[in-house]
Amino acid sequence: MTIETASLNKSHGGVQGVYKHNSRETSTGMTFSVYVPPHQDGAKLPVVWYLSGLTCTHANVTEKGEFRRACSVLGLIFVAPDTSPRGEAVPGDPANAYDFGLGAGFYVDATEAPFARHYRMWSYVTAELPGVIAEHFPADMSRQSILGHSMGGHGALTAALRHPDRYRAASAFSPIVAPSKVPWGIKALGGYLGPDTQAWRKHDAVALIEDGARFSDLLVDYGDADPFLTEQLRPGLLQDACEKANVPLTLRRQPGYDHSYYFISTFMDDHLRWHAARLKT
Amino acid sequence: MTIETASLNKSHGGVQGVYKHNSRETSTGMTFSVYVPPHQDGAKLPVVWYLSGLTCTHANVTEKGEFRRACSVLGLIFVAPDTSPRGEAVPGDPANAYDFGLGAGFYVDATEAPFARHYRMWSYVTAELPGVIAEHFPADMSRQSILGHSMGGHGALTAALRHPDRYRAASAFSPIVAPSKVPWGIKALGGYLGPDTQAWRKHDAVALIEDGARFSDLLVDYGDADPFLTEQLRPGLLQDACEKANVPLTLRRQPGYDHSYYFISTFMDDHLRWHAARLKT
Repeated sequence: MTIETASLNKSHGGVQGVYKHNSRETSTGMTFSVYVPPHQDGAKLPVVWYLSGLTCTHANVTEKGEFRRACSVLGLIFVAPDTSPRGEAVPGDPANAYDFGLGAGFYVDATEAPFARHYRMWSYVTAELPGVIAEHFPADMSRQSILGHSMGGHGALTAALRHPDRYRAASAFSPIVAPSKVPWGIKALGGYLGPDTQAWRKHDAVALIEDGARFSDLLVDYGDADPFLTEQLRPGLLQDACEKANVPLTLRRQPGYDHSYYFISTFMDDHLRWHAARLKT
Repeated sequence: MTIETASLNKSHGGVQGVYKHNSRETSTGMTFSVYVPPHQDGAKLPVVWYLSGLTCTHANVTEKGEFRRACSVLGLIFVAPDTSPRGEAVPGDPANAYDFGLGAGFYVDATEAPFARHYRMWSYVTAELPGVIAEHFPADMSRQSILGHSMGGHGALTAALRHPDRYRAASAFSPIVAPSKVPWGIKALGGYLGPDTQAWRKHDAVALIEDGARFSDLLVDYGDADPFLTEQLRPGLLQDACEKANVPLTLRRQPGYDHSYYFISTFMDDHLRWHAARLKT
C-alpha cells in the first residue's frame, strides 16, 4: 500500500501531513491527514482517530480543530480521514443535497445500488486505513482511540461499540446517536443499506447498546445552542440507552455552544486528555 | 458608525464575531472579526490587533490562528481586519497577481491613481477601525497592542514604530521588515505610493528605525524553512537596524517551520503572553 505525500508542515513541534492513496475499499483515490507529534526515534505512539461530519473533508479538523498543541504535549498521533469517496465515478445524491452522497458517507458499507461499489467508509476507516497507518507511521496499533463530530460522532460511537477491544477510548462532539430515528440517519441508512431497518441497527449507537454492545466509558459533549440538537442529534436517547445498559457515559451540555468548529476546538483539549489517560495505561 | 453582525459563535468561553460595516476610509464595505473573551459585565479589556498577510481576509487567522484559548485565559480582545478594500468598484492588480491589489493592501494610504480612492488601509487600521472597536466592544483603548504575519507583520511593525505610545506591545510572525528592499514591497509601495522612495520610508520598519523611530521592545519569529525568507522577509535587516539603534529585539529562528498558519498557530500562545505581560501593567 503506497501513499503519496500531498503536504508536510511542521507544527507544534511535530509534523502535520496530508496524504493521498488509492483505496481498494472505495475504488477511488482518498485523502487523509496525520499529525505526528515530536517523539524519539523508534518510538511508537498511540493513535487517535477523528471522524468528521457532513460536508467535511480531512481539511476541516486539520485546519480548525486546534488539536495539535494537545497532541504534541500528550504524544498522540491524530488521523483524520475524509467523509466519503470522491471522484467523477462516484455517485452522489441525485438531489445534490449535503446530507447524502459526497461528503456524507455515514461510515457504512453500502449495499444498495448505485452506492455499494464506492461507499465503503466503514471498512475503509476501521480496516483499510488502519493498515496504511500501521505501515507508514510510528503508530502503536495496540493503542488506538476514536472520536468524531456529528455524523463522525455517530461513526466513532458505532466503531467503538463494535470494536471495544480495539479502541481504548471513545468520545464525540454533537454526535448523531440514533440515526435510525432522525431525518439525516433515516435518509442515509435507507439510501446506503436499503429499507430493512434491521440492517441499520449495527450502524446506530443506541440500537447497538440495546442489542448488547458495550464500551468501557464514553464522553459526549454537545452545545445547547446547536441548531440540530433536538431533531438530528438527540443525546437524550444515548443517555437513556447507557443508563439502562449500565454503560458509563459522561454527557455534558455546554451552554451557548453551537455545532461548529468554534465549539469543537473549545473542548478538543478535554477530549484528547480523556483519550490520553486511557491510551497511556 | 453602525456595524452589522455577520456571525457570532461561542468559543473558548467567549464570543467570536464577524462584522461588516461601511468604511469611510476605503469607501467600501469592510469585514472584520473580533474575539471577546469571557469577562465580567462592565469590564474593559485590552485589545490585540492582528494584521494578516497577502491573499488573506479576516477569516484565515480567525479559523486557523489558534488564538482564542490564550485570549480567553489572558483576557484579551483579538481584532482581525481584512487586508484590502474589496468590491466591484475597487481596482486590483491589472496582472491579477496575488501580491498587489485585492488581498494585498500593504497597510498604506495609496496616493497613486487608480488606487488612492479605496486603498486606505493605513488609516482604516490605525484610525477608523479603532473607533469602531471603541464604540461597539468592551475595549480599553488605552491598552492596545499589535501583531501580524508577513505583509501584516510589516503592518504591525510600522504601526508600532509610528505609534509607540498607543501600542504597548508589538510582535510579528515572518514579517516583511524592509519592503523598500524586496520584490513584494517594491511592487506594492511603488504601485500605491509612486516612484519617490522617500515616501516609502514611513512604511518600512527598517527605514523608520534608521530615521529615528523607536519602540520599547519587539518580538519576531520566523521559520528557517520559510520559502520567502531570504528574498522577501530578510529578518537580518531588522536585526541590524535594531542593533544600531538600540531597539530591543527578540528575534527567534524556528527550525523547520514554514510561512503557514501551522507555524503561526504554534507560536501564537507565546506572542499573546508577550502582549499580555505588557498590556496588563
